[in-house]
Amino acid sequence: MTEQRGPIAVIGCGLIGESWAALFIAYGYDVYAWDPSPTVRQGFAARLLRPISQVSAIAQRTRGLGQLVVAETLAEAVVDAVLIQENVPESVEIKRALYSEIEVVASEQAIIASSTSALTWSELSPGMRRPERLITAHPFNPPHLVPLVELFGICLSTLERADALYRAIGRKPVRLKKDAVGHIANRLASALWREAVHIVAEGIADVSEVDAALVNGPGLRWSVVGAHMTYHLGGGQEGISHYLQHLGPSQVRRWASLGSPKLNVDVCEQLIAGVTEEAGGRSVPELEAIRDSLLIKALQAREGQDVV
Amino acid sequence: MTEQRGPIAVIGCGLIGESWAALFIAYGYDVYAWDPSPTVRQGFAARLLRPISQVSAIAQRTRGLGQLVVAETLAEAVVDAVLIQENVPESVEIKRALYSEIEVVASEQAIIASSTSALTWSELSPGMRRPERLITAHPFNPPHLVPLVELFGICLSTLERADALYRAIGRKPVRLKKDAVGHIANRLASALWREAVHIVAEGIADVSEVDAALVNGPGLRWSVVGAHMTYHLGGGQEGISHYLQHLGPSQVRRWASLGSPKLNVDVCEQLIAGVTEEAGGRSVPELEAIRDSLLIKALQAREGQDVV
Repeated sequence: MTEQRGPIAVIGCGLIGESWAALFIAYGYDVYAWDPSPTVRQGFAARLLRPISQVSAIAQRTRGLGQLVVAETLAEAVVDAVLIQENVPESVEIKRALYSEIEVVASEQAIIASSTSALTWSELSPGMRRPERLITAHPFNPPHLVPLVELFGICLSTLERADALYRAIGRKPVRLKKDAVGHIANRLASALWREAVHIVAEGIADVSEVDAALVNGPGLRWSVVGAHMTYHLGGGQEGISHYLQHLGPSQVRRWASLGSPKLNVDVCEQLIAGVTEEAGGRSVPELEAIRDSLLIKALQAREGQDVV
Repeated sequence: MTEQRGPIAVIGCGLIGESWAALFIAYGYDVYAWDPSPTVRQGFAARLLRPISQVSAIAQRTRGLGQLVVAETLAEAVVDAVLIQENVPESVEIKRALYSEIEVVASEQAIIASSTSALTWSELSPGMRRPERLITAHPFNPPHLVPLVELFGICLSTLERADALYRAIGRKPVRLKKDAVGHIANRLASALWREAVHIVAEGIADVSEVDAALVNGPGLRWSVVGAHMTYHLGGGQEGISHYLQHLGPSQVRRWASLGSPKLNVDVCEQLIAGVTEEAGGRSVPELEAIRDSLLIKALQAREGQDVV
């Protein structure tokens, strides 16, 4: 496949748009950005400095930074783009209306990629002239550091071109075979958090202890070995078939014992008090800075070695 | 609290016993090990070389290695121990019988700590003369690398002495307020895996894609930020209270959409085929070696900086 260096359009310049723009620019791509709000457009370049410098700490690249053009119109942003990364609010109506406008001006070859977290391809594609060029490409927060991008679409060649573009900016795309609310990662995260809330609600452990258990235990291990592979490594020489045969029934019993908490006032108060204690007076931006610095170290540590 | 350097007894010399012994020895503690099987005792010292060298790559320590004594009898192993780390098979009868024998010879001050994964303190303590000195201290596989130890017991001073001993060997203990099957970490892992199995069973994504999504997405992030704190950082300046108010209802809807898969023959075959493909011809020991090397790098990367 020939390398597509053509410009990238970033449509919607909030937090997710910032991350995408920073990634593409840090890896040498020119970015045309546009947002319906002039105020958002105006501050965009300045807001990219920090994520670009963070990406530069982990980027393996051979060329200089790409150029940023903040376009005055949607048409100007998308007309030459090979990839149009859409990050507008999570509304079917807003996104569909935007795609209609984009389809008028964009090149026939341009990929339209929605960063949507809450919506699905099936909800977004109706009304498009050429739905085969729409994909969902869901990044994971903070998107300029966490490598995951979850892809779904109906056209294999569109998906392969998108896959190559995302890999070129250090991303690790995965493919869904079927459209699903929450894609993969947010379904997993939601399942885990449900039990994390249950543990607090049942008085088994405090918020900060649950979080400490995760980051020093399964979270650390899941940063290098997936959930399925974990049970392969827990099954001795015969791996997962041995595990399923001998310990499968105990997992099914464990599943039955997991909780279904309510997010009622009491539980919410427990969670807020617990997280406040865990934050220990550190503000959200301070905590984010620690998170980012640790993510960068973790990514540098795995550099050059693929995870299991 | 005065430092307790007194010897550690490691009772049960399988994989978990190896990890505990390697940790204590690498951090300069003398270990008295015993296993009912003479064959297991005989090979024990040789099996510690690899985990000791792995721990040494991440241990911050100021003294040389501790000594290993492989005891001929249980009494010899426990008589002088300040901590008796029990790792015998997961049977209430076997463990209770062992504790009775230990109580006859051990010092009144000795802590008896069970590494049990499947059983609870409430199942293990009946029949003990002094149940206040029994704790569950559940490590997470591979225990010499993953820092988590989950503690439960009924005596605060016993827990605090154990906590200090585990921290002295680089562990990150967490406390349960209430006895629970699966402690914290295995409950979280089980909840996540249930959804991971559902995603495969429903044909949403293949085994290897689910695992890749985890290690490059939420797993990576959970290695530095816990599940509860994640939603604090996802709620803007107001943190988790804003999140719960605005996105709590969408999480509850997501929870309702999560799966309850069966581990029937079809699903097990899909999992085995998927993991086999993911393993790509690499044996379980080869995969474990990659996992361990990545865990060591991840631990070195976070060295000196506490996670969020």
